[in-house]
Amino acid sequence: MRYVEVRREVCMTAREIYEARLVAGTWGNVSAWVDDVMVITPSGMDYGTLSPEDMVIVNGEGEVIEGFFAPSVETPLHLAIYKNRPDVKGIVHVHSPYATAFAVARRPIPVILEETAQAIGHEIPVAPYAHCGSEELAHHVVRTLGQDKKAVLLANHGLITVDVSPSAALRACYIAERTAMITLFAEQIGSINILADEDVKCLYEKFKNYGQKKDR
Amino acid sequence: MRYVEVRREVCMTAREIYEARLVAGTWGNVSAWVDDVMVITPSGMDYGTLSPEDMVIVNGEGEVIEGFFAPSVETPLHLAIYKNRPDVKGIVHVHSPYATAFAVARRPIPVILEETAQAIGHEIPVAPYAHCGSEELAHHVVRTLGQDKKAVLLANHGLITVDVSPSAALRACYIAERTAMITLFAEQIGSINILADEDVKCLYEKFKNYGQKKDR
Amino acid sequence: MRYVEVRREVCMTAREIYEARLVAGTWGNVSAWVDDVMVITPSGMDYGTLSPEDMVIVNGEGEVIEGFFAPSVETPLHLAIYKNRPDVKGIVHVHSPYATAFAVARRPIPVILEETAQAIGHEIPVAPYAHCGSEELAHHVVRTLGQDKKAVLLANHGLITVDVSPSAALRACYIAERTAMITLFAEQIGSINILADEDVKCLYEKFKNYGQKKDR
Amino acid sequence: MRYVEVRREVCMTAREIYEARLVAGTWGNVSAWVDDVMVITPSGMDYGTLSPEDMVIVNGEGEVIEGFFAPSVETPLHLAIYKNRPDVKGIVHVHSPYATAFAVARRPIPVILEETAQAIGHEIPVAPYAHCGSEELAHHVVRTLGQDKKAVLLANHGLITVDVSPSAALRACYIAERTAMITLFAEQIGSINILADEDVKCLYEKFKNYGQKKDR
Repeated sequence: MRYVEVRREVCMTAREIYEARLVAGTWGNVSAWVDDVMVITPSGMDYGTLSPEDMVIVNGEGEVIEGFFAPSVETPLHLAIYKNRPDVKGIVHVHSPYATAFAVARRPIPVILEETAQAIGHEIPVAPYAHCGSEELAHHVVRTLGQDKKAVLLANHGLITVDVSPSAALRACYIAERTAMITLFAEQIGSINILADEDVKCLYEKFKNYGQKKDR
Repeated sequence: MRYVEVRREVCMTAREIYEARLVAGTWGNVSAWVDDVMVITPSGMDYGTLSPEDMVIVNGEGEVIEGFFAPSVETPLHLAIYKNRPDVKGIVHVHSPYATAFAVARRPIPVILEETAQAIGHEIPVAPYAHCGSEELAHHVVRTLGQDKKAVLLANHGLITVDVSPSAALRACYIAERTAMITLFAEQIGSINILADEDVKCLYEKFKNYGQKKDR
Repeated sequence: MRYVEVRREVCMTAREIYEARLVAGTWGNVSAWVDDVMVITPSGMDYGTLSPEDMVIVNGEGEVIEGFFAPSVETPLHLAIYKNRPDVKGIVHVHSPYATAFAVARRPIPVILEETAQAIGHEIPVAPYAHCGSEELAHHVVRTLGQDKKAVLLANHGLITVDVSPSAALRACYIAERTAMITLFAEQIGSINILADEDVKCLYEKFKNYGQKKDR
Repeated sequence: MRYVEVRREVCMTAREIYEARLVAGTWGNVSAWVDDVMVITPSGMDYGTLSPEDMVIVNGEGEVIEGFFAPSVETPLHLAIYKNRPDVKGIVHVHSPYATAFAVARRPIPVILEETAQAIGHEIPVAPYAHCGSEELAHHVVRTLGQDKKAVLLANHGLITVDVSPSAALRACYIAERTAMITLFAEQIGSINILADEDVKCLYEKFKNYGQKKDR
């Protein structure tokens, strides 16, 4: 079996979004891009019992080249992103409650926290509504992500994050959800103070050098 | 012992609604319809230690035909639903907090998410108030469910869902609760955008073909 | 060691209020009344590691007659209640978040749910503010409980419930907390509908006969 | 290895803030002051697998004198506090959601609960905004803490608490978070009643003598 390590990371990330309640049931999906193929979660299967062998490998045209199961219905969306963003190696799509509330209100999530600036680096915009699984949705998301965004809301649907790996994209999901939650709380007890653009830029750059001299 | 598999599904669903905190204490109940009899949870017992043998089997007139315990006090409600809806094979009744808040405000839960459209397919209406366990409540719920609804709120009480099995009805409970929660959040940070009727219909139909070529 | 069963019930109830996050740290306390003595949790000890031997037994004058530790600082409050309410055999005091919010706003928790009517049977009033551990607080709570109430809020402090046993009083805590939470949610998405007095009375009476022919 | 017990307490406190979701990812940090050196958590490491050997020991000038890893980026902030407050022996910094919402709204957390008065003893003020890890932030926090405060909010960032040990500071974090949460809830269902200054003072003093005749 090829791509054992990548399969494991995709699978473990999918199990974590389920256990951390970022999705309900079998909604949500995770993928990685490696050697011009995509490793992606299967469609509609129970995340609680998913194992690395269940991941599906598809080529750049979306054809299954390895795997027993049908790939996620959002395969066209994931492929479209990898084609437009060579820097992206991992994608996570969740329906976490607070971020999804912003997607339902069609309001961007503002940069109100240091960690939002550090791990995401921009206000999270909302891509226009289109049916899940459609080419139209893929088109909207790719355009809203542009060449440098890490996170986009999908109107009436959920959140998608992209990064150098599935686990880095998962971290962006956690931060986006936390930022959405704290924005809601802060507005209930007063009003929010959004970080200035130059602070966001500075924090985002400095964060790259944090930690223990390894890539985070 | 007859109906071992069905007893197990009813029992496991009842334990899950307790563990997922969709009910407090011994409130809430679960049933399945099989071969013209109903398998239902017993009344007022601790869900944490419930086992399949504790399930009660009653006939279409509500008489116990197998089981050591008294059946749920909502037995008349469950029976009335099965009689009016031959398509229904499983019923779950919970008091989950966000859905129940809509039941207390007597406001329908709107279709604001893709998964609400997919797994439920309609706005969740509120049945008028009547005492729990009463024939009047059964009457109200049956009329509000009609021939095609999957979920109904019970005023000042909770939520009931019906589907092809107890586990499918449980999924509808999770989605209804999540939809109620995200509606509340979205209105706090802005206003909700409800999905158009034609989108709801389309998503509901397409969803039937999702997954791995087995009945979901 | 006397009262092994009662010690165990008091201890297990104290551990549960901690694990269910109805209190933070060592706040909150639990007692039972048996044979004219009170079994109560010790003051300021870690609930996570509490065992039945750590419970303290005090007589009607508040003197320790068995136990290595000092009793809860709320001993005067518990004793005052048992003296005024011969029907009470168990008391639980918690600082659960939603009920405490009503205590901070000094607003009664309304009867908006069937289970509030069934397990508590009345709107939960707020006793006036007095320092924790004071005789004045005991006086306020006794007067607010009267001869028939099961639950009272303590202004800027928390919730106290009384019943036929510590575990029955714990159930009243869970229902009070859930009722407070759902009231808050319902007002956020609309307005609350309070159950009529005659419905509350009827539900409370009927509930006594629910379950499996044993005392609940 | 020196300071085994202190390393363990710092490490266990760091793991607890992660498990109790007071921080996300690797944000947040914990330290203790002992024999004129500081034991502090390392920068950017996974708290779930942290062990006491991973703690870093730095001297009063911030130089690492023992440890394999780089210390927390907030090392200047911790050192500045210890220098100005000889009574402080433990510091905990978290990004807990409700307290952080007050930090985003730049609103102090009021003393609305008995335990806020007892374990913290004052309204929690907000230090002005400065980048995390900066000397400017350290300056703001030291000035806002003054000579007698136990807790301070960091604008758009989080909460810091100081006490006689890391575990006592952790308790202050829990109480601050709970107070912020209940303030938000109470304002949603009515308005808050803040405890009078003389009550706060009295409760704070009395609390020192609670518990089982050992230092709490």
